Amino acid sequence: MESNYRAGNLFADVPTDLSNETFEDIVRYQGVVIERITSLGHRTSEDSWYDQPQHEWVMVVQGSARLLFADGVELALQPGDYVNIPAHCKHRVSWTDPDQPTLWLAVHYPR
Amino acid sequence: MESNYRAGNLFADVPTDLSNETFEDIVRYQGVVIERITSLGHRTSEDSWYDQPQHEWVMVVQGSARLLFADGVELALQPGDYVNIPAHCKHRVSWTDPDQPTLWLAVHYPR
Repeated sequence: MESNYRAGNLFADVPTDLSNETFEDIVRYQGVVIERITSLGHRTSEDSWYDQPQHEWVMVVQGSARLLFADGVELALQPGDYVNIPAHCKHRVSWTDPDQPTLWLAVHYPR
Repeated sequence: MESNYRAGNLFADVPTDLSNETFEDIVRYQGVVIERITSLGHRTSEDSWYDQPQHEWVMVVQGSARLLFADGVELALQPGDYVNIPAHCKHRVSWTDPDQPTLWLAVHYPR
């Protein structure tokens, strides 16, 4: 029997220094990454895009944010809102709430 | 440019008929499954265990639940509480809230 389960809470120990957006691994295993991202008013720099080699599924758990896609569509995200973003689907974070931390849960998985 | 992103909300369209626990795929891709599970008082039948060939990371998003492991440890889960459960780590759902739907987010990923 293997029983090394590992527990935590997504709302626990939110970084207090949010001068930079933070990325914290929850699970990292053979190309699959589950991470918590904490934003506070951060957005992707003006003329750059995420163009990722892996697929990403991302959900806002707390706070609010906006995602802009290269086709011009902008999605406003509230808690529970998720987006599945295929590899190389260009996107940027166009806004996150400056008044409270926005917690994202992201799952990166291989092509 | 690939831009077939796909959006949804984890709290949307919760099944109204919860006579059975429900399992709904959000993403299913090459051995990785992201799913929403909705429970309403359901638990694993008394003398059976989940003994899964894949790893599972699971988080309670709404409601509350208890997970029992074969080593006798029982975890009480509230929103935001998550557990990473290795493949073949035997566990059972020993309790879920009978008064409100409990929403779980589960990520199954290959060994």
